[in-house]
Amino acid sequence: MAKKYVYLFREADGNNKALFGGKGANLAQMTKLGMPVPPGFTITTEACTKYYEDGRKISKEILDEVFATLAIVEKEANKKFGDPENPFLFSVRSGARASMPGMMDTILNLGLTDISVEGLAKQTANPRFAYDCYRRFIQMYSDVVTGIGKDFFGRILDDLKEEKGVKLDTELTAEDLKELIAKFKAFYFKSQGEEFPQDPKKQLEGAIEAVFRSWDNPRAIVYRRMNDIPNNWGTAVNVQAMVFGNMGETSGTGVAFTRNPSTGEKKLYGEFLMNAQGEDVVAGIRTPETIDYLKQINPDVYNQFVEICGKLEAFFHDMQDMEFTIEKGKLYMLQTRNGKRTAVAAINIAVDLVKEGLCTEQEALLKIEPKQLDDLLHLQFDQKAIKKMKPIATGLPASPGAACGKIAFTAEEATRRTANGENVVLVRLETSPEDIEGMNVAKGVLTARGGLTSHAAVVARGMGRCCVTGCSALKINEEKGTLTINGKVYTSEDTLSFDGSTGNVYEGAVPMIKPDISGNFSTIMSWANKYRKLKVRANADTPADAATAFGYGAEGIGLCRTEHMFFEKDRIAAMREMIISDTVEQRKTALAKILPMQRADFIGIYKEMHGNPVTIRFLDPPLHEFLPTKAEDIAALAEDMGIPVEKLKDKIASLHEFNPMLGHRGCRLSVTFPEIAEMQTRAVIEAATEVNKAGGHVKAEIMIPLVGEVKELRYVKNVVVRTAETVMAETGIKVDFSVGTMIEIPRAAITADEIATEAEFFSFGTNDLTQMTFGFSRDDAGKFLEDYYEKKIFESDPFKKLDQVGVGALVKIAAEKGKSVRPDIKLGICGEHGGDPSTIEFCHKVGLTYVSCSPYRVPIAILAAAHAAIKNS
Amino acid sequence: MAKKYVYLFREADGNNKALFGGKGANLAQMTKLGMPVPPGFTITTEACTKYYEDGRKISKEILDEVFATLAIVEKEANKKFGDPENPFLFSVRSGARASMPGMMDTILNLGLTDISVEGLAKQTANPRFAYDCYRRFIQMYSDVVTGIGKDFFGRILDDLKEEKGVKLDTELTAEDLKELIAKFKAFYFKSQGEEFPQDPKKQLEGAIEAVFRSWDNPRAIVYRRMNDIPNNWGTAVNVQAMVFGNMGETSGTGVAFTRNPSTGEKKLYGEFLMNAQGEDVVAGIRTPETIDYLKQINPDVYNQFVEICGKLEAFFHDMQDMEFTIEKGKLYMLQTRNGKRTAVAAINIAVDLVKEGLCTEQEALLKIEPKQLDDLLHLQFDQKAIKKMKPIATGLPASPGAACGKIAFTAEEATRRTANGENVVLVRLETSPEDIEGMNVAKGVLTARGGLTSHAAVVARGMGRCCVTGCSALKINEEKGTLTINGKVYTSEDTLSFDGSTGNVYEGAVPMIKPDISGNFSTIMSWANKYRKLKVRANADTPADAATAFGYGAEGIGLCRTEHMFFEKDRIAAMREMIISDTVEQRKTALAKILPMQRADFIGIYKEMHGNPVTIRFLDPPLHEFLPTKAEDIAALAEDMGIPVEKLKDKIASLHEFNPMLGHRGCRLSVTFPEIAEMQTRAVIEAATEVNKAGGHVKAEIMIPLVGEVKELRYVKNVVVRTAETVMAETGIKVDFSVGTMIEIPRAAITADEIATEAEFFSFGTNDLTQMTFGFSRDDAGKFLEDYYEKKIFESDPFKKLDQVGVGALVKIAAEKGKSVRPDIKLGICGEHGGDPSTIEFCHKVGLTYVSCSPYRVPIAILAAAHAAIKNS
Repeated sequence: MAKKYVYLFREADGNNKALFGGKGANLAQMTKLGMPVPPGFTITTEACTKYYEDGRKISKEILDEVFATLAIVEKEANKKFGDPENPFLFSVRSGARASMPGMMDTILNLGLTDISVEGLAKQTANPRFAYDCYRRFIQMYSDVVTGIGKDFFGRILDDLKEEKGVKLDTELTAEDLKELIAKFKAFYFKSQGEEFPQDPKKQLEGAIEAVFRSWDNPRAIVYRRMNDIPNNWGTAVNVQAMVFGNMGETSGTGVAFTRNPSTGEKKLYGEFLMNAQGEDVVAGIRTPETIDYLKQINPDVYNQFVEICGKLEAFFHDMQDMEFTIEKGKLYMLQTRNGKRTAVAAINIAVDLVKEGLCTEQEALLKIEPKQLDDLLHLQFDQKAIKKMKPIATGLPASPGAACGKIAFTAEEATRRTANGENVVLVRLETSPEDIEGMNVAKGVLTARGGLTSHAAVVARGMGRCCVTGCSALKINEEKGTLTINGKVYTSEDTLSFDGSTGNVYEGAVPMIKPDISGNFSTIMSWANKYRKLKVRANADTPADAATAFGYGAEGIGLCRTEHMFFEKDRIAAMREMIISDTVEQRKTALAKILPMQRADFIGIYKEMHGNPVTIRFLDPPLHEFLPTKAEDIAALAEDMGIPVEKLKDKIASLHEFNPMLGHRGCRLSVTFPEIAEMQTRAVIEAATEVNKAGGHVKAEIMIPLVGEVKELRYVKNVVVRTAETVMAETGIKVDFSVGTMIEIPRAAITADEIATEAEFFSFGTNDLTQMTFGFSRDDAGKFLEDYYEKKIFESDPFKKLDQVGVGALVKIAAEKGKSVRPDIKLGICGEHGGDPSTIEFCHKVGLTYVSCSPYRVPIAILAAAHAAIKNS
Repeated sequence: MAKKYVYLFREADGNNKALFGGKGANLAQMTKLGMPVPPGFTITTEACTKYYEDGRKISKEILDEVFATLAIVEKEANKKFGDPENPFLFSVRSGARASMPGMMDTILNLGLTDISVEGLAKQTANPRFAYDCYRRFIQMYSDVVTGIGKDFFGRILDDLKEEKGVKLDTELTAEDLKELIAKFKAFYFKSQGEEFPQDPKKQLEGAIEAVFRSWDNPRAIVYRRMNDIPNNWGTAVNVQAMVFGNMGETSGTGVAFTRNPSTGEKKLYGEFLMNAQGEDVVAGIRTPETIDYLKQINPDVYNQFVEICGKLEAFFHDMQDMEFTIEKGKLYMLQTRNGKRTAVAAINIAVDLVKEGLCTEQEALLKIEPKQLDDLLHLQFDQKAIKKMKPIATGLPASPGAACGKIAFTAEEATRRTANGENVVLVRLETSPEDIEGMNVAKGVLTARGGLTSHAAVVARGMGRCCVTGCSALKINEEKGTLTINGKVYTSEDTLSFDGSTGNVYEGAVPMIKPDISGNFSTIMSWANKYRKLKVRANADTPADAATAFGYGAEGIGLCRTEHMFFEKDRIAAMREMIISDTVEQRKTALAKILPMQRADFIGIYKEMHGNPVTIRFLDPPLHEFLPTKAEDIAALAEDMGIPVEKLKDKIASLHEFNPMLGHRGCRLSVTFPEIAEMQTRAVIEAATEVNKAGGHVKAEIMIPLVGEVKELRYVKNVVVRTAETVMAETGIKVDFSVGTMIEIPRAAITADEIATEAEFFSFGTNDLTQMTFGFSRDDAGKFLEDYYEKKIFESDPFKKLDQVGVGALVKIAAEKGKSVRPDIKLGICGEHGGDPSTIEFCHKVGLTYVSCSPYRVPIAILAAAHAAIKNS
């Protein structure tokens, strides 16, 4: 049997959005619920996929099926498509599996021609209406099918209105519109070299193809990438009999939500226009009425609409976003879908729905998009104020939140001026580990270079600091202390504002608000905690971060990066002394200076975590990151350290690496300098001893980074265990500690069964694992990834959303191999991906023990973990 | 039943070298063949492994077994170990599975004490002999067991000889020796704080442990790494009754080969000393006699020895290297093994053995170490001359051969001076792609930095150019044009010589010779061709390289790197113009200039390959490699190109990458700039058309590098196929071409089933695959790999010998996945590993179609492929 590509609304399966798209499935549901839906049919998403497979051609088979189905609709309505006397008109709309609002195109009034428009005029006894329909059709068809911009027609319309001395479209007479149609058609002929199509079947064919084609337009591609929608889903096409909101003052059209999409308040919310077609509502020429006005002018229709809203909410168990049309006082439903909503509304609606008995807690949780919670956890600009401002530049939305302050060009300057009570934003070409203190004190970080996973972005997200990166419009002259944007020069006295959720940069100060997190937020979190299986930990390097994470519900620290501690001013000197040591003894002397500081850090972190496990990663970055690069800094440091400049220069040169990402770092440092691992172990165990003495119960997990071979881990683990035993023998106090490794080198994943013989836990370092599995440096990939999206080679950034096919396969292999050797092995993930909902679902399925993410993403991860458990139960 | 660790020679299995070591197994064989072997026993390699497992302790179980077995030997010989009247003395020698000559230690005369030495004197009626044995024992035992250097005893001996006014040891009287023993023992007491051990059992225990321990001494570790011997094999220990070559003038000891190990000539070859123990032969104080002299002084023993030699060759089917002792006119065999030999000898012996019917062709092939062939394919220093010279510095043996010439400090200088008829060697800090022309004309390349897989090393090996890298003793001042080694300054007028097989650097000119490759070489190659299954191709970038490769028997080109062509002087200008283009049109204009040059290259290469397949890899390196880095070079280039310096600087800055290895290179370039792939395809196809017109039959294989995702390959393949079809439509001539990819990104291996849907062949780029699987940059790993060897984390350089556990697992996965989708997929390897014999065996087992290596390694690969096929048939 041939595959069926076209279904009447009443035939379609309302639960199969994959096949019928969201719009088509819901039209089927409403039809079956007996609601007033104009008749029509849906062409499936498979037809779209076939269109692309067939080299962008609609096959004869599908077209035949379309016209056969159309014939049924004609017969039942007793009207003929293309009938010159009484033409049966249709709308053609796209409808993908996931809602992609505004991304694709719609055509109304399809089926009108020079002849049938006269039939319509006669039949409705309303020539003005008929001409209005036809001119709208020509406009939309030309735009959507042939790509003539709407503006051209808009200008012709404006010229005519001026000529006629009228302000509103509705003031044009039938004759005026007839004249307009002639002008439109002339323009069409001039630009296309052929007449506007007069065969309704050709019109329909063109419209269907245009919808298919629109799936692949640039804004649709960008939208899909931003929303993780696969390219191969395709869109369905809905062909529906027209009803007319523009048949006079008893007709109208509008959109409405069953609840307030901004606040979640349970109150019908929407707007409509009388004597209008859909596009007029959003066009903004006439001011729409609120839905309450409908109650006044037509209480019957209003009541019918309210009843339908109730039925729809009850059926879909969610807030609905609907389109409707009133034709001569009769209500028609054109669309319903679960409405988009703000984070606040999402939470309030979810809690309300459960209270109202409309859905279960699990269902309610699934209605909240985890990523949305981000909006609730950071300072935000006042959206009302923002609407009136124009950005002066736009970069990448690297870390959410809003920042506002005077410009600081260096980290030192930021630190100094903040100490003096100023609010500053740090503006740099790019950031480096030396900038960490300045980033921490600044209100936000703005860089000219770097992607979403650049140093600035990663560190800022970890701190919950607002950050915009890769803002290439910035021309920074650090020496002069100037920033130039589009020719305008800003100095350290000027104030900038920027939005880490949009990447927009504004001149001056934008007013800010802190979103109100109502009690419903914690209700949602408690439900999520009830259903999730995955534990959620945080990546935190300082007691302050640990406290934030614990406050948000983190159940431990999955990644404490010890090196960040070394960059702080009072420590980097000892670190540098360690690096330039010539002998083991010199190195040990320098390390001894670092020991008490590191011990103090760990004490602070342990205390904040209240007995939850703390995974401490040993020194990871290449040592040259701790040394200066500029000649004057090197000279100053040499003097500070009392060594010849040449010696320091030689040391720096000897540490230079061609590919530092693949260089002397991670456990390789401890292999060369085991005394580093000794010192760090001592700090971990001594700190735990101190906290335990005060009644704590520290669970320390020592994590050896960048292991690729079990013998590396064994070597370093031996150093760790020996040192820990020495310390415990000294103090006589036992400490609960384990030793594990990051799985971040492909070879570690492949040989995970060998590695698990030594490792008591694995933590997947998916940042590095992604870099090495793809052979991409995350600092460099930004340069070509745009080409990859554009050419549809990649659908999403593999540094944000885990590549499940490649990197994920390695994670799966490693998890299985690890468990085969050590069935109770603890498995976690601590890369940037740990806070990404789709990755969290993957982690749930693969059977990891926990995910770890930045403190500010803990609530997102908790909700995503609950989603994963509910979806896969 | 408890495991047996100790076997009498007659009990041991002579074929089980893994358990008994080479020496022990062969002693067992000789014993079974009825040859005069002093009795004794072998302690197995498993005992050694257990020793290390038990924390460097010999278990009581093993010691008990040793003494029980010793008791059997005592009983059969009717002599007692430690008997004060007639002491039964033993030698203790190591014996690993693979021969490790000189790597481990031997103790003779074990069992002597202050008391039993007197018994021995009386028993043999030869006090001088007895004291001589004892003083030798004290010397060897002290050196091997307690680590007191031999030199200390040597000095005491020398002092005594001076005192006594004698020159030779043999001139010392019994009384002198007695005095010497007293001095030795006093020194032992002084350095050890205890008396020299007087309990023979303790002596034996100490000696056995010393042999076990010697397995782990630094020179043994280095030797194993150089010879691919696993650390976990362990050594056996052979305890054998002493026979004495120092019992007077009818006694003697010597070593002999059944054939000449330098030339392969079938003639007994060896040397011996009368009245001496083993060590004296090699000590060089007395000049040994040739084996012919034995014929004169004791023809019976000589004839018996000749007969034994014949039997041993017939039994082992190979040239033997033997140790023997004559005690009072009676011959004893102490050891036999297959003898080490030069490459020339190896070939001649193999051919002779087959002629003599002593072995089959397959067996003969296995007797030649493939790596040895290297020595035959490059110019060499005259070894006689070398012996008299002292190296002034030593670096890494990066590419074999010998180089001699005046110093050139830059590639340009090398090119210029060579054009003027000078012989120069290129001496640089490190090389970069810009140096390629200078490297090509120089007699050899010497660098201060870089490892065995640095740019200099890889390029030089490809060219067959002698190269020494990482010679850190060089202090180069390029500006002044001086090279300083150990304080001595050399200028461009000075001549250096260096040896790419040893890494040694000499002052002045060392005489050179070209090894004589006799007809036997081609006999061996023809046998290898008969048995191998793997095809062998070469990596060649120029017609000259292709010709060399074809001459050596290459069956195609597995890797033609197109970028090397772009670095040549007349081309780099067009390349640079392409890189700094702002628009597609500019870029196409620049590419149009490169097209005819590239086409000409391909024509030359196709012609040299005579219809064999040629795999052409499209542009791979990051573009910044083509641009200068020094300020003055940038200024000069800007002027050349007629563009502002600032513009060029900006372009260079925008191309800068943090980790170029993981940056914008490989197929990523063609995704961004498809016009590059278009131009290269055009060159490939047009060149093939031209050669085909002249009667050729070109098989072009277009290889897309650095693919990690099938959609990348699909995108570039579409460009290639479209362009190729356009060209073929233009000319009307079909070209046999296919499109495949490198598998060099871990993700490509993991998703090879997806990639094989587009790729018609895979070529494993194991250099990059190793880098990314381990997360090592080969340019940087040299800094820490030494620590890895020392700490026994790595046994060999993963860039030289394929890591079969990790990288090999990915190769295997990819080969299997590739075949699952495309059963006839062509599979090759083109990394540096393609010329490594153990990797070649791996490739054979995994079922690859071919290996590809540098032209000068083709014969090695052919032989190794034959080995693989024979060993695994």
